[in-house]
Amino acid sequence: MISNIGPRATVDLPGGEAFGGDYIRLAHTAPKPSANIVINFATQQRLVDVPGLVTFGKTRRLCNMGELTATCPELAPAGWHQYVAYAVPRPAIGDFDEKTEIEASLQDLRDEFPGFAQAKMLSMRVMRDGWPAQRSCAGFDLPQTTPLAQPLARGRRGEGLWRRWHPGLRLHRPRGRAPGRSPPGRCPRGGGGVMAVAELQAQVDQARALLARLRPLFEHGVAALARACAPGGQLDGAKLDEQQVATFEIAWASADLLAAETTLARLNGDPLQSQLALIFAVDAIAALLPRLEALCIELGLPLAPLQQLGADADWAALRGAAGGAQALTAAGRALVAAGDAVELGSVALQDPVVMAQDAFRRFAADVVAPQAEHIHRHDTTVPESLLQPMRDMGVFGLSIPESHGGTGPDEGEDATMMVVVTEALSEASLAAAGSLITRPEILSRALISGGTDEQKATWLPRIAAGDPLCAIAITEPDYGSDVASLALKGTRTEGGWLLNGAKTWCTFAGKAGLLMVVTRTDPDRSAGYRGLSVLLVEKPSYDGHAFDFQQPGGGRLSGKAIPTIGYRGMHSFDLAFDQFFVPDANVIGGAGGLGKGFYFTMAGMVGGRMQTSARACGVMRAALRASMRYTADRKVFGAPLQAYALTLAKLARMAARLAACRTLAYAIAEQLNAGGGRMEASLVKLLACRSAEMVTREALQLHGGMGYAEESAVSRYFVDARVLSIFEGAEETLALKVIGRSLLEDALKP
Amino acid sequence: MISNIGPRATVDLPGGEAFGGDYIRLAHTAPKPSANIVINFATQQRLVDVPGLVTFGKTRRLCNMGELTATCPELAPAGWHQYVAYAVPRPAIGDFDEKTEIEASLQDLRDEFPGFAQAKMLSMRVMRDGWPAQRSCAGFDLPQTTPLAQPLARGRRGEGLWRRWHPGLRLHRPRGRAPGRSPPGRCPRGGGGVMAVAELQAQVDQARALLARLRPLFEHGVAALARACAPGGQLDGAKLDEQQVATFEIAWASADLLAAETTLARLNGDPLQSQLALIFAVDAIAALLPRLEALCIELGLPLAPLQQLGADADWAALRGAAGGAQALTAAGRALVAAGDAVELGSVALQDPVVMAQDAFRRFAADVVAPQAEHIHRHDTTVPESLLQPMRDMGVFGLSIPESHGGTGPDEGEDATMMVVVTEALSEASLAAAGSLITRPEILSRALISGGTDEQKATWLPRIAAGDPLCAIAITEPDYGSDVASLALKGTRTEGGWLLNGAKTWCTFAGKAGLLMVVTRTDPDRSAGYRGLSVLLVEKPSYDGHAFDFQQPGGGRLSGKAIPTIGYRGMHSFDLAFDQFFVPDANVIGGAGGLGKGFYFTMAGMVGGRMQTSARACGVMRAALRASMRYTADRKVFGAPLQAYALTLAKLARMAARLAACRTLAYAIAEQLNAGGGRMEASLVKLLACRSAEMVTREALQLHGGMGYAEESAVSRYFVDARVLSIFEGAEETLALKVIGRSLLEDALKP
Repeated sequence: MISNIGPRATVDLPGGEAFGGDYIRLAHTAPKPSANIVINFATQQRLVDVPGLVTFGKTRRLCNMGELTATCPELAPAGWHQYVAYAVPRPAIGDFDEKTEIEASLQDLRDEFPGFAQAKMLSMRVMRDGWPAQRSCAGFDLPQTTPLAQPLARGRRGEGLWRRWHPGLRLHRPRGRAPGRSPPGRCPRGGGGVMAVAELQAQVDQARALLARLRPLFEHGVAALARACAPGGQLDGAKLDEQQVATFEIAWASADLLAAETTLARLNGDPLQSQLALIFAVDAIAALLPRLEALCIELGLPLAPLQQLGADADWAALRGAAGGAQALTAAGRALVAAGDAVELGSVALQDPVVMAQDAFRRFAADVVAPQAEHIHRHDTTVPESLLQPMRDMGVFGLSIPESHGGTGPDEGEDATMMVVVTEALSEASLAAAGSLITRPEILSRALISGGTDEQKATWLPRIAAGDPLCAIAITEPDYGSDVASLALKGTRTEGGWLLNGAKTWCTFAGKAGLLMVVTRTDPDRSAGYRGLSVLLVEKPSYDGHAFDFQQPGGGRLSGKAIPTIGYRGMHSFDLAFDQFFVPDANVIGGAGGLGKGFYFTMAGMVGGRMQTSARACGVMRAALRASMRYTADRKVFGAPLQAYALTLAKLARMAARLAACRTLAYAIAEQLNAGGGRMEASLVKLLACRSAEMVTREALQLHGGMGYAEESAVSRYFVDARVLSIFEGAEETLALKVIGRSLLEDALKP
Repeated sequence: MISNIGPRATVDLPGGEAFGGDYIRLAHTAPKPSANIVINFATQQRLVDVPGLVTFGKTRRLCNMGELTATCPELAPAGWHQYVAYAVPRPAIGDFDEKTEIEASLQDLRDEFPGFAQAKMLSMRVMRDGWPAQRSCAGFDLPQTTPLAQPLARGRRGEGLWRRWHPGLRLHRPRGRAPGRSPPGRCPRGGGGVMAVAELQAQVDQARALLARLRPLFEHGVAALARACAPGGQLDGAKLDEQQVATFEIAWASADLLAAETTLARLNGDPLQSQLALIFAVDAIAALLPRLEALCIELGLPLAPLQQLGADADWAALRGAAGGAQALTAAGRALVAAGDAVELGSVALQDPVVMAQDAFRRFAADVVAPQAEHIHRHDTTVPESLLQPMRDMGVFGLSIPESHGGTGPDEGEDATMMVVVTEALSEASLAAAGSLITRPEILSRALISGGTDEQKATWLPRIAAGDPLCAIAITEPDYGSDVASLALKGTRTEGGWLLNGAKTWCTFAGKAGLLMVVTRTDPDRSAGYRGLSVLLVEKPSYDGHAFDFQQPGGGRLSGKAIPTIGYRGMHSFDLAFDQFFVPDANVIGGAGGLGKGFYFTMAGMVGGRMQTSARACGVMRAALRASMRYTADRKVFGAPLQAYALTLAKLARMAARLAACRTLAYAIAEQLNAGGGRMEASLVKLLACRSAEMVTREALQLHGGMGYAEESAVSRYFVDARVLSIFEGAEETLALKVIGRSLLEDALKP
């Protein structure tokens, strides 16, 4: 096999076992700084008629090229287009012949662009090793010829991700500037004016300083609330219930605050990202101040510190400069100039992850998106034409270690990859692609955390392969968020358990061949959550909206899909179990797992919430991009909608929110990878899901009547987004029971 | 005919012409103060097991009765239930025999409630003439026997509104306390505590004082913005475009401010209404302060006055007392205790209007609601089983004078009745009932404002009768809000015009037999809106989602419904006109009407927006009531959802928003009746429609997963509500071009 997607991604394709130890070792070493050849030139004939970065798939050395004047026309004299091209020499690490490598790069440019012959060369530089922005492993230091003859040999994974969705045989679509690679310098702002990077940086510093003053005031409020809820030093249930309104408020305040802090902390010098981060931060501070004031009034705390901050001249100056109408429209203009494929948020990804992102976005756009509307409007079941390639690409094994047949790491976890893949798929369809990962995520984590070795060996590779597909049955008609009260009854019988009772909102239960069923195996109901176990129910896979499965021994499981306004394709089922037999082998953890179902279930919840944040980001990205395209095309009162200040301001606010949610989501994925971030996964889920509601609402509004028509994709984004704040932990449950509680507990710690 | 719905409503049933002049004269005199017999008593056995006011339909004298202790248990000693009953003597105006009349009232109580025999009498008072709260015309001073033999004789109106939907033969469902009739005294607040009416009143005064200080600051900002947009003293188009973001903000600020002011100005002493008005006002002030601060920063105005107000101790005190967690949960508790039929908002209606409200709510609940889900989910056409009774009830003639066969007044207009009927119908279904009135509203106003006498005589009675049904074709594929650019072309031909071109979003075009088509009759496109005329297109009525109508002479009109996520039932059509012939007689205003189409169209727009506010209020009311019921039934963590503080706070905020929108809508309907309120109709449309989005969003959230299921009505309220901010003037258009512009123009007036 020859692969040029980089060593880690190459290994991930067929799985690690297929390679020799040497290759694996080479592949898994940390990314290394590669050299870069940077060529600046200008032409009078425009070479590319789209803004953004053009990425090349089949060249000698040339990697990508961007027209700087597409977004910053003032860089060049009138009539000239200025470009920067990046090439990677061979070898990328260590010595190389500069002259030969530069010539190969220039030859690429001549081949790709006939107009390059007339180019005026401005500069040619070789960047080596130490230059920070180029810290990436280009892959050329590893042999492109791998020890594998053909990844197809492993069967299930099919042709592999790269060959199908990253063919490299044609010019890629233009992509937005990758973070960290944006050209330094000046960027347009206001009516043709420019704002120096230094000025933006000063505003960023100002915003950080304000947030740094706000943080202790917030924590002061949390501490006071914690004391009010813990008269005896420990949180008291009744007091917590009394203080629900205040607790709800601090959960939201903490989400806004953390998102603003994180977004400002992770800026990488890209002017548009800075502008958007400032817009989000200004809106967040403006929302936080009255929220915290109300909290202070509620708890009898002094208002003066907040009022002083609110009356601060720095704050007024920042609001005007970075959050005012001019700043909004300028950011909107810069956004529109960057094109709808611009990357928003400060998300620094390793090359293999970028490659996966690219591959999944391509798959989403080429294969999922064309089917998404039909699946939604006809409420059909996710078809095999989507499921099979996702199986092939290893989607169902993202949180299963490679050693168990998955595509996740053997050590630790790779939440970042999960977020990348989920986001990319959700952009094309929340229901028919982006949400497929949640179920194997939850089930495989339950198995990993509690399953016997035999169960892991039996089920994990099959789940990873997407055969069977799986579903999670927790919620019951009378119990939503209240897991400890679940009632579906398992009764001991010879060799196993008989299940009787009902579950509801079991998504994908029809198509799935394996259900994770949280069952009350202890007849003593007072045992609460300690009476629950997780049983694996095997059943045939059904298409359609209802099924009725009879076991030979007389057991029965029937299901009926609940029609919903969106999130269609997987269908969420009402399930009825009637003397349904489950063998002992299918109790997770065996006899030792009885009564531990609650913990096994919880093991997957954090990942499920993280994943849902990514789903929300994908839907937001789709809605924003659709709005950018529509407002460019749609004319009102004689000009494109995008020419109007209000449209630009709306687009800027939507982009700012998406950027903040993405930055936070990826930051928290990193925390999860490092073993932390459990509460924060709920927090970003809270924020991103509500943000998706807001962004899709505005997207629909920008589309006017067309947005309300089912044939426009934004109408689907809008109804789909509405489910996000309900499932995987309803907004209220997360705010009160997870985030609020955790903040209050932390505040009580000495 | 014998009628006891009151004289005006009786006359409205079959239409004025049917009555003798004497009866009409009597009926149209102003409402007169009637006497009341008020009986206070207490029982140990509970007589009615629901809170609120019970209204009686078939009694001698007794009108209604309420249990005071249902909401204010502290009024009576433990174990006792305290009631107040109201009866109207005969005659209600002038002298009557007190003893006989009281005895008749008591006999009613004995008949209705066997337990009344054990009642302990507390007081019996006769209220006469001057007592303000009883200013109503009970109808007993007019003969109940009218000069009409049978209203059915007029055919089209069928059995009449009263007989079908206000049978009076059974005990009415309990209704909430009517405004102005709430018992004075104390009401529950907080954990069993009580708050004196005086304390509430002090808070109301405080809120009014704060708003009175905010108003000039707002106007100062508007004036500054106006100056910025009018460098030469007149508003400048380019400057207005530059200032879109600020203008959008002031439009919203003005809506919040006016709603808060109006809500506080119209309180009638009912404690719940006061609590809700305060909650809305506190939220509005909290939103206005940062909004106005941002505006001041934008325009370089001093921030100090706003900051002083924000730091005012009165403001902090009010926020804590009237908008804090305790106040929210107390209001939620009072709301829940009042029951889901409680009337929210300070809306004082005359008796005939109350009767219509009652009748239409009954019709909506009994006839429309049971069909609403099916129509929505199967996207069927509004069936005759709904249309015919609405024809019978005179719904299509609400804005057509009685003298032209309608149910509106001959002099002036009755926007209040339109709002009442629309709101009542929209509560059951926005799409299949509440929105049917908009089309005849717009068309009949165009006819009244510009039609020839012959056109009025021909069309108005037919439109009023709902035969034909009508539709309005304005929007075109390339022109939404931009009416002046409309392009559908009318070309002169012998005896009329040939239409060629397209229209879109023409709601009800299939079922309608009459389309109002805004047509460019002047070939000179530079004439802009002065080149438009209104043509009436007659066509057959079609059920279904597409039609193709061929004229004998070769003309053709085809239509295709655009599938939408909600607002289903009437269907919105794409229309294609191809050499479609319209005779001269169908040009509104004849030859003199050519080029005046824009003005004729505008004549109906104000009513359409007022009506849309009522549609929004109806949807909100439905969503709130569904949420009140669901949260009472649904148990989580062992208690009804309604037992939790956060639920109560959410319900209170939803109710506060509905109450404010209703109060404002009815206040502006009064202004329209008095000949004003044109800008304000857009303002309340803006606020009520966005509020409906917010309230239905929260309603869905309170329902959890169930809210997302199509079988739950809130899922329909949610998708239906989303159309409100788009049609009848999109949010952005109203905020910038109507409200903002009008505020700025007013500010420039000397």
